[in-house]
Amino acid sequence: MTPIRSRHQIDFQPVGKRVDVPAGTTLLEAAIQAGIDLSSACGGMGLCGQCRVQVLGGEVSPPSLSEIDIFSELELERGQRLACCTEVTGDVKVHIPKESLLIGQRLQIEGDSARLQLDPMVRACQIIVPPPALNDLRSDLSRVLDTLRDSFDLGPLQAEPDVLAQLSPLARAEDWQLSVFIRDQEIVGVAPAKTKPLGLAVDLGTTKVAAYLVDMETGGELARSGILNPQIGYGEDVISRLAYAHRNANGLQMLADMIREALNELLAELVAAAGASRAQVVDACIVGNTAMTHLLLALPVSQLAVAPFVAATDRHVDVKASALGLDMAPGAYVYVPPSIGGYVGADHVAMILATGLDDVDKVAMGIDIGTNSEIVIRKPGQPHLASASCASGPAFEGAHISDGMRAASGAIEVVKLSQNAVDIKTVDDAPAVGLCGSGIIDAVAELYRCGLLNHRGRFQRHASRVRKGRQGIEFLLVEASESGSGRDIVITQKDINEIQLAKGAIRAGLEVLLQTTNTRPEEVEEVIIAGAFGSYLDIESAKAIGLFPHMPHARFRQVGNAAGVGAKQMLLSKQMRNRSECLTANTDYVELTTYPKFNRKFALAMLFPNDDSPR
Amino acid sequence: MTPIRSRHQIDFQPVGKRVDVPAGTTLLEAAIQAGIDLSSACGGMGLCGQCRVQVLGGEVSPPSLSEIDIFSELELERGQRLACCTEVTGDVKVHIPKESLLIGQRLQIEGDSARLQLDPMVRACQIIVPPPALNDLRSDLSRVLDTLRDSFDLGPLQAEPDVLAQLSPLARAEDWQLSVFIRDQEIVGVAPAKTKPLGLAVDLGTTKVAAYLVDMETGGELARSGILNPQIGYGEDVISRLAYAHRNANGLQMLADMIREALNELLAELVAAAGASRAQVVDACIVGNTAMTHLLLALPVSQLAVAPFVAATDRHVDVKASALGLDMAPGAYVYVPPSIGGYVGADHVAMILATGLDDVDKVAMGIDIGTNSEIVIRKPGQPHLASASCASGPAFEGAHISDGMRAASGAIEVVKLSQNAVDIKTVDDAPAVGLCGSGIIDAVAELYRCGLLNHRGRFQRHASRVRKGRQGIEFLLVEASESGSGRDIVITQKDINEIQLAKGAIRAGLEVLLQTTNTRPEEVEEVIIAGAFGSYLDIESAKAIGLFPHMPHARFRQVGNAAGVGAKQMLLSKQMRNRSECLTANTDYVELTTYPKFNRKFALAMLFPNDDSPR
Repeated sequence: MTPIRSRHQIDFQPVGKRVDVPAGTTLLEAAIQAGIDLSSACGGMGLCGQCRVQVLGGEVSPPSLSEIDIFSELELERGQRLACCTEVTGDVKVHIPKESLLIGQRLQIEGDSARLQLDPMVRACQIIVPPPALNDLRSDLSRVLDTLRDSFDLGPLQAEPDVLAQLSPLARAEDWQLSVFIRDQEIVGVAPAKTKPLGLAVDLGTTKVAAYLVDMETGGELARSGILNPQIGYGEDVISRLAYAHRNANGLQMLADMIREALNELLAELVAAAGASRAQVVDACIVGNTAMTHLLLALPVSQLAVAPFVAATDRHVDVKASALGLDMAPGAYVYVPPSIGGYVGADHVAMILATGLDDVDKVAMGIDIGTNSEIVIRKPGQPHLASASCASGPAFEGAHISDGMRAASGAIEVVKLSQNAVDIKTVDDAPAVGLCGSGIIDAVAELYRCGLLNHRGRFQRHASRVRKGRQGIEFLLVEASESGSGRDIVITQKDINEIQLAKGAIRAGLEVLLQTTNTRPEEVEEVIIAGAFGSYLDIESAKAIGLFPHMPHARFRQVGNAAGVGAKQMLLSKQMRNRSECLTANTDYVELTTYPKFNRKFALAMLFPNDDSPR
Repeated sequence: MTPIRSRHQIDFQPVGKRVDVPAGTTLLEAAIQAGIDLSSACGGMGLCGQCRVQVLGGEVSPPSLSEIDIFSELELERGQRLACCTEVTGDVKVHIPKESLLIGQRLQIEGDSARLQLDPMVRACQIIVPPPALNDLRSDLSRVLDTLRDSFDLGPLQAEPDVLAQLSPLARAEDWQLSVFIRDQEIVGVAPAKTKPLGLAVDLGTTKVAAYLVDMETGGELARSGILNPQIGYGEDVISRLAYAHRNANGLQMLADMIREALNELLAELVAAAGASRAQVVDACIVGNTAMTHLLLALPVSQLAVAPFVAATDRHVDVKASALGLDMAPGAYVYVPPSIGGYVGADHVAMILATGLDDVDKVAMGIDIGTNSEIVIRKPGQPHLASASCASGPAFEGAHISDGMRAASGAIEVVKLSQNAVDIKTVDDAPAVGLCGSGIIDAVAELYRCGLLNHRGRFQRHASRVRKGRQGIEFLLVEASESGSGRDIVITQKDINEIQLAKGAIRAGLEVLLQTTNTRPEEVEEVIIAGAFGSYLDIESAKAIGLFPHMPHARFRQVGNAAGVGAKQMLLSKQMRNRSECLTANTDYVELTTYPKFNRKFALAMLFPNDDSPR
């Protein structure tokens, strides 16, 4: 590891994290290195104004034009800055206000709920009800319904026993002054007067679960949290979890209970953070890939695990939260959006919605890179979107790579090769212990750029640092003496092949979608890269290894967890739910494995681009 | 006990019950004495043809004209008879076919479901679905919905996860040939092709629970069964059960679980008897008094137990069977009809429906006698029915009476007094051990008729058999030497007062309803007596003690368990459900305790009718 510039210590408060960065690093970059998820919709361009921080002391660059535009003089005097525009020139102490924090998940999507027309499924009605008396013997429900009818235009309403169980004691405790939560023609909960209705949005990933607590009346986010999906103990990937559920008599219910319990814990945490109560959480929207939503709902998965891989349902599901054991308002529902195919799930639908891919007026692609990578293409004038799922495997997540690892402390995330040296950057700037996905792609791109790999992915023998290791030919990235593990960190021929398989799967999928929609690569105007991994990916490296066809006019946009944003939008807007249902009805699922000559396409896509092949 | 005529033994098969009856007793009467509930809609008039039996041997009266009309010559040769028309003239062996049996409950309502227009909430659709293939990757639900759409005019449908959980494995096991059960816009269950939808109707009484399994396509009853309400261990009457639920932290849920479990057991028994499966039970209608339906649904009851006694809800309830823990089709609902007031419940509504009281074109009254007695009056031309609940207490059921008992073996149910003798008839003709309700009313009526009681209900001292006992003045009904218990059976002054309180409550309620509807007693054309006790009541005795105002033009009809019949009708007909909702909206609940001068009315109503007072 070769330091390039002088380094400074950045002290982030109130989180209490310190990090050493080279001079000239922006506070946003420093925060990312420190593992602090600063809000940034524009990806560090100084445009969105979300990454506001306060410099409490130390030396930083002077305010940029953007900042002078955004902040008042007084604010600038107080040290208010945009983290993305502020470069460190000495040790710095920084305060990060709560509203600039994304807890747990990066969220770099443009727009968010700001431009959303609020139109939630559940509304609150404030009523004061005449109490029972000897000359007014109406039942509790009847007097509430009569009062609602007199003040609101709601049509006939009903309430299930669980809600009635809540109503009678609460009405008496609150002197008949109530906030009544209404969804369609149903009362889903009651609360003391003026209690606000809240909603829960969840992006239920195979690995991570991100949850958001939202004020249904303002659309504002009150709290967010993320945890690992506890099902991981029963399989890191989707297939092994489906296999577990299929093989074990009670496996499906057990996996379902596991995630339901985790969601309950997340909800308890969010509600506590917001100083709210579970009984005011009146609606939820949960997105995930098809396998995850099946496991959440305890839907049969045997048919999803074997050809022809069909879902139990691809329709949207409205189910009582109580039926899933989720402790919310007693009559609350959970909405799970529709999906597109057996391996293009509700999370992809949420991403399409959040990025507006179903509606943009240009040729655009969306790619969500993961163990399965979902891709979609939009071509204005064509009535349908086209979508496909690529079995890209876990190599991009550091799995099946000899020194691969998750993006945890000490993971190499950036690699630069020069003739004599290997420059790396690790997570937390800790001593290197392995490579995470973006580091692997960087490394492969650099090896190819420097001619150490040919376009078939074979190592150039006899080159510097290329040697014969225990697993065959390998490249020495970090010597044992400089590594955190005390062992050499290498990239093997097998690693290269794994990356070729992964990028080949995605590339071939992209090619098929271009063909089926009759689109030339030059026509593509926008490429949206979604998902956690996608937001760390170095686009130039990805291009260099030929992950994408050569799309000279495409603008690349890395949008982070767009699925979570889409989930929030569907929580807050009936219109977005309707749109998700139109969108799935209007998206053609392209089954790649049965596409003519797919195997040949796939084999070609594994090659690295050479000067003859268009990239 | 004075034998009047020669006695013969009747041997009922296949139930295996024997009973000794006097010559001239009908087989229907003998069956009733044996505790066998023979079907009889006409009450033994030889009209309905329901009490069919086969005389296997012995001496009986020759066929009546009705029987010659109903049976063929061959049938008569084989011993086919109507039990109500066949008098015994010697020992007889009788076979009772299953279809003539009412298990557990008398059911003497006219009409039944025969005249009902079948229009159930749930229908079955038979489909053959194309199976998934590589070129047909629709989800399981989508292919089912598409197939339904192509063959039936149903509109958009959905299905909850529990139903989807059933669908995927069943479809594959049944080669995609399915019976799909649909309620409104929802699939509530699936079954192998040609499986019939069944329904469950329940009359949930404070003491007895009667359940019926019904074919939803024909309306035919497949099985019925009755049990004691297991909540009896926590209070014999409604008030003590409500108090238990109110006082104990988990009391409500415990009482709810207890009855839900009992319903599950009943259902298992019914389904087994019909050779069916629980998964084909796609709908249920449960009626009961307000307290019983609250306890079933685990609705709050504290406010129902104290003034002003209001229900949590008086609207109809549609709730998932699964939410009540009832093991039916996975998406099935339970319908609980609306109620009229805190103490006029869904069972009374069912009775009104079954007897058509809401619709008849004459001045009619309905009375359901129990611990609380519900009464209703219909006056053509008035838009609303009027209904009230009388706190008649348990005396008519044998409680609070010194030698009172339930209508079990040895209970005196008929009493006749002559100058020198007491004639009694007991249940099972067993030695007398106490008095059940009808026996008590008979006894009081006879005591009054014979001048042993004055019109204030005081005993005539110094009369034969009137003596001073341990509890004051009493009448000796059965001497210890002739009783089954070895103790004297007596009727005390306090017993008389209890009966006066009970009949006074009902009589005063009837008077108030007549007043509020501006009805003269002479206008009343029909009086319907519903409920188990009411069907054993001797109407003449009831008139003699002044239970009813003098209604010279009224025809009395004892209809047995009309509530159960009403439940079946609402199970089989949407129109009947709608009617129950109109009916409750159009029934005025009259709170007796706040009615002007009610206490004076009540005091007068406790008197026995004398020649001066109109009866």
